Amino acid sequence: MKNTSGKFITIEGCEGVGKSTQTRFLREYCEKFSIDAVFTREPGGTPISEQIRAVILDAAHQSMDSLTELLLYAAARRQHTAEIIAPALAAGKIVFCDRYSDSTLAYQGYARGIDKQIINVLNRFAMGETEIDYTIFMDVHPKNGFLRKGGANASDRLENEGLAFHEKVYGGFKEIEKSAPHRFLSFKATGTKFETHALIIAALKERGVLT
Amino acid sequence: MKNTSGKFITIEGCEGVGKSTQTRFLREYCEKFSIDAVFTREPGGTPISEQIRAVILDAAHQSMDSLTELLLYAAARRQHTAEIIAPALAAGKIVFCDRYSDSTLAYQGYARGIDKQIINVLNRFAMGETEIDYTIFMDVHPKNGFLRKGGANASDRLENEGLAFHEKVYGGFKEIEKSAPHRFLSFKATGTKFETHALIIAALKERGVLT
Repeated sequence: MKNTSGKFITIEGCEGVGKSTQTRFLREYCEKFSIDAVFTREPGGTPISEQIRAVILDAAHQSMDSLTELLLYAAARRQHTAEIIAPALAAGKIVFCDRYSDSTLAYQGYARGIDKQIINVLNRFAMGETEIDYTIFMDVHPKNGFLRKGGANASDRLENEGLAFHEKVYGGFKEIEKSAPHRFLSFKATGTKFETHALIIAALKERGVLT
Repeated sequence: MKNTSGKFITIEGCEGVGKSTQTRFLREYCEKFSIDAVFTREPGGTPISEQIRAVILDAAHQSMDSLTELLLYAAARRQHTAEIIAPALAAGKIVFCDRYSDSTLAYQGYARGIDKQIINVLNRFAMGETEIDYTIFMDVHPKNGFLRKGGANASDRLENEGLAFHEKVYGGFKEIEKSAPHRFLSFKATGTKFETHALIIAALKERGVLT
């Protein structure tokens, strides 16, 4: 079931592949053309979710169980969805969200090896009635994205992983893409960031998200 | 499946029914007779779980979605179980836990009306392979317990509920008791707290938890 009123667009991909830049360009585009859009991100998005995010990211938490982490992501997502995303969609807005359920499946499921069925159940709990209309997938291999960004950043536990880990994440996104081809809008980012932006806008116009 | 080595005992009941006192008496008993027992509580029990507990209890969080809260409880329980309870049971210890899965079902399920199936799924995720051997249930109606304690305490969002809410919680515990009579050791607490303590010790001895 698609959202009856607004459109929910998620933005996914590995670290350092230009997600933030493309999200910023989309925001500027919507401002320029006075499009009523909400820009948000995961994990986070609300004060409660940000507080949960702080617990997850605390580099001191080396003893965090992988399922604990998964439940915290689901809690943050639930709050974010109930407080921000669902009301905006109900009001007919376009919601752009930097990372959402696919990131959990790619990072925790495909890369960390947590049971994908558990992840799917938790994603469903967190999402409730909300459905993703389209996913902008930055289809860039982590070798390019990760190296471009300058490698692991020890201050952030999530980025404190080797290339092999990020390759698994990328493989996960490619599997999810296969399972939901109707929803995935994939961009190889072989041109400049401005060219990629133009391709994203064209794809969203083609599907009636932008007019 | 019961735990192969140690024994896992939960302590449940409404607010102000003497759970803390009985838990303290149990701890003193175990110390006196050099019984290798671990005393812990929910939500909380580990630094990560305590941090999650702080997010749940923050009185400023009036906008917390009920499912967010449920997922946070599950996250705290998962961490607590993986880090404290399961290793202690594997080492052959008796673990006494003040509140556990039944509290979630009673408070969130029966009293707040959240889907009990969702709660059962989350409890199972959080518990993993761990099973409760026995539950010490302080079978005291909230009218007695709640009033004895002096009513609602505004500084704690969880206790900031009326008597009607706590009556639903009590009804929930009674339903759970019916569904798991083999596991429930129920105490009406009609005598003094010392008499109740003696009854609890006798029940645990009869079942081979204490020798």
